Amino acid sequence: MSNSDNNTPISEFGKYGLINHITGGIRPGNKSTVTGIGDDAAVIDSGRNLTLVSTDLFLEGIHFNLIYTPMKHLGYKAVIRAISDIYAMNGTPGQVLISLGISSRFSVEQIEELYEGIGLACGKYKVDLAGGDTTSSLTGLTIGVTAVGFAEKNKIIKRDGAKPNDLICVTGDFGAAFMGLQLLERERKLFQKEKITQPDLSGYEYVIGRQLKPDFPAAVLNELGSEGIIPNSMTDVTEGLASDLLQICKLSGTGCRIYYSKIPIDYETSKLAEEFNVDPMTPALNGGEDYELLFTIPLEDIDRIKSLQSVKVIGHMTSEISENYIVGDDGSVVEISAQGWKGKT
Amino acid sequence: MSNSDNNTPISEFGKYGLINHITGGIRPGNKSTVTGIGDDAAVIDSGRNLTLVSTDLFLEGIHFNLIYTPMKHLGYKAVIRAISDIYAMNGTPGQVLISLGISSRFSVEQIEELYEGIGLACGKYKVDLAGGDTTSSLTGLTIGVTAVGFAEKNKIIKRDGAKPNDLICVTGDFGAAFMGLQLLERERKLFQKEKITQPDLSGYEYVIGRQLKPDFPAAVLNELGSEGIIPNSMTDVTEGLASDLLQICKLSGTGCRIYYSKIPIDYETSKLAEEFNVDPMTPALNGGEDYELLFTIPLEDIDRIKSLQSVKVIGHMTSEISENYIVGDDGSVVEISAQGWKGKT
Repeated sequence: MSNSDNNTPISEFGKYGLINHITGGIRPGNKSTVTGIGDDAAVIDSGRNLTLVSTDLFLEGIHFNLIYTPMKHLGYKAVIRAISDIYAMNGTPGQVLISLGISSRFSVEQIEELYEGIGLACGKYKVDLAGGDTTSSLTGLTIGVTAVGFAEKNKIIKRDGAKPNDLICVTGDFGAAFMGLQLLERERKLFQKEKITQPDLSGYEYVIGRQLKPDFPAAVLNELGSEGIIPNSMTDVTEGLASDLLQICKLSGTGCRIYYSKIPIDYETSKLAEEFNVDPMTPALNGGEDYELLFTIPLEDIDRIKSLQSVKVIGHMTSEISENYIVGDDGSVVEISAQGWKGKT
Repeated sequence: MSNSDNNTPISEFGKYGLINHITGGIRPGNKSTVTGIGDDAAVIDSGRNLTLVSTDLFLEGIHFNLIYTPMKHLGYKAVIRAISDIYAMNGTPGQVLISLGISSRFSVEQIEELYEGIGLACGKYKVDLAGGDTTSSLTGLTIGVTAVGFAEKNKIIKRDGAKPNDLICVTGDFGAAFMGLQLLERERKLFQKEKITQPDLSGYEYVIGRQLKPDFPAAVLNELGSEGIIPNSMTDVTEGLASDLLQICKLSGTGCRIYYSKIPIDYETSKLAEEFNVDPMTPALNGGEDYELLFTIPLEDIDRIKSLQSVKVIGHMTSEISENYIVGDDGSVVEISAQGWKGKT
């Protein structure tokens, strides 16, 4: 650090950079700690199986704006965010624990609505609400979500296992949640400025749904299993396709090449990006909150993966460490970069 | 609820009341969920052993004031708070996961200090820092701590197992952390009003230490084991001795009688309470953050428990449900009441 007055701004580090920098000196010592910091979930040896534990914070004003986020959707999304990390390691989520910090402006009915959404997601993904903590808060709503899951010992898939020539695969499409957020923010500002009572969201139901009430493609993990495809590396796309892919490359010691024309982008996302005058590839690569799977598989599985409708191959890994490129339709090559700390509000 | 406009204030419920009210309809469905909401930690069947998971939020302005809380102490205390819930079920903590929400007013060096404290506590209690999440925050520092631990299947001790005639036992003393907080708050106000640069904290090192850098009497669990004493019920005292004891009574279907003269209170706590013109029994019963063990044992273990220096018997359980009393030195009997939602900031 160049700063001599002991006041290095946090923005100097990216998200992963900060975690690595600070926790670099803390090494696991317990036999039960299989994997510590640096993957989607902590992996704990609990005897016969592995226990996976993941924890996330959801902060009002950072992760959600209650002006356009129904409490029920928020509860649903908090559970998806938590269990997404368990699926991302090829685990099966079993329990969630929810901690709430609630300021006095919330009513019991609002918290009930939040738990209704939590209950809905728990029911759909067959996880139990197993605990948590409730406390008062000075400043709005704080949600801490912890997910617990299980995996057989040789079945977990980490971020660091990608090999050169692996095919890079994704589920779903990218950038929709981000564009949904832009749209909601635009309408909020219009509403506050011009007091238009009815925001115009028609034709954009998909992107708004992706932002407010995302689901996770858990079924794809079973499809991969049925096809006998075992990914070498896997993560969930929450920070952004670029950032999450670069994490896999960094931890695996590979480079990557993905193809502009292969990145799945929904029609609504593209249309809205055009309205906002941005290249749709920007939200697709850097938007985040997609809650999709990103994984790499051995090249020889190419025919088997093609039989899965829900998976798209977007590129391949290379042996060139730190050389991570996106290839344009005209053959032009651009380096992929991740966002900084401030990018992801 | 009497309120017809769908706006029941949260203060209408106590802490446990709110959790019970809202989560009452959500029942666990997974075989691996042994115990859901309502105890210190979630209990998860992970095959050979039980996995215990607990999660807590630490919010700036509610749980800590950075004017007098060194970041290092804060990190230490956050770990103690988390693992305390695992010990409270007679488990052995193995891992913690720390999530941070950090506003831009914090520097990397401050977060490093926080992690130094986390690392110290992890080292002392032999737990691994195994993961977490880092995000930006609009409003100060938010800390989410999740602890994971293990217990043999027939060894966990819950809150609901107390029997009539059980002896009520505690470790340590009570009210010190609360009085430490009152002192720190008084000096803060004096400092802000009169710009006294040097707060006068001499003679009160113990209560301040109990507030800022508490430890947990983990060794007592081994002592109980060595003596062959198996508590029928157990919890950690974090909300306050009264509130935590009443939880055990409620869940076990017992009443209790504790004795005024038996409640351990440190000299500094008493002296400071006198300065503040309060009965020392008020912080002792309702202060909270004591990080001590509260448990009940069969009456026949009375001689064995007396051999343990670190444990005090403060009363006994009765078969009279909802009759929870504290008996004064003069034989007078007063009902024990727990604090409401707002009490604990």
